[in-house]
Amino acid sequence: MQKIHELDRHENDFGLQGFRKVLVHDSADFKILNFNLAAGQIFPVHSHDEDGQLSIVVLKGSGAFLGDGGRELPAGTGSVLISDIRDPHGVRADEDMRILVTIAPPI
Amino acid sequence: MQKIHELDRHENDFGLQGFRKVLVHDSADFKILNFNLAAGQIFPVHSHDEDGQLSIVVLKGSGAFLGDGGRELPAGTGSVLISDIRDPHGVRADEDMRILVTIAPPI
Repeated sequence: MQKIHELDRHENDFGLQGFRKVLVHDSADFKILNFNLAAGQIFPVHSHDEDGQLSIVVLKGSGAFLGDGGRELPAGTGSVLISDIRDPHGVRADEDMRILVTIAPPI
Repeated sequence: MQKIHELDRHENDFGLQGFRKVLVHDSADFKILNFNLAAGQIFPVHSHDEDGQLSIVVLKGSGAFLGDGGRELPAGTGSVLISDIRDPHGVRADEDMRILVTIAPPI
């Protein structure tokens, strides 16, 4: 089984209200989601009481990875955050930002 | 547990001979590898007789995803290939290309 997704296509643009979420892939092995955040938008800090880990890859744009207690770390194109699913994590876009989230095992 | 990797840093450049491989993350949940292929380099078509899936995300550059029998599909920034680990897969860089490979469960 193989398939290709093009995340950089014109149709996959940035929403003016709320962030745009695209399910890229969901299988027994991992779930992959694409989020597009317009400048100023925030993917709120959250966590899930589940085993497993996630990666957040910044494909385009810049902003910050957010943690609990106001903690933040710079995020730009090519930045990869690895986090346990149960650790608080979020993203703030300072410019239009395209991110790819991979969750394994999927939740 | 959280950590950040910066794949777009100057130190993480493109090798002139062979492709450059960086282990980004390895856990019980998934393995993440960054490969930098200089223009003209090929990540040869291969497969593993194991369950599980992988994603190949193109962070920069362009070329093709390769399959068996000479099959190829265009790959550019923002392209994501999802493949079973046991299905033949490879990559050819037509220009310097930075890719991120995520394997779940890790092999």
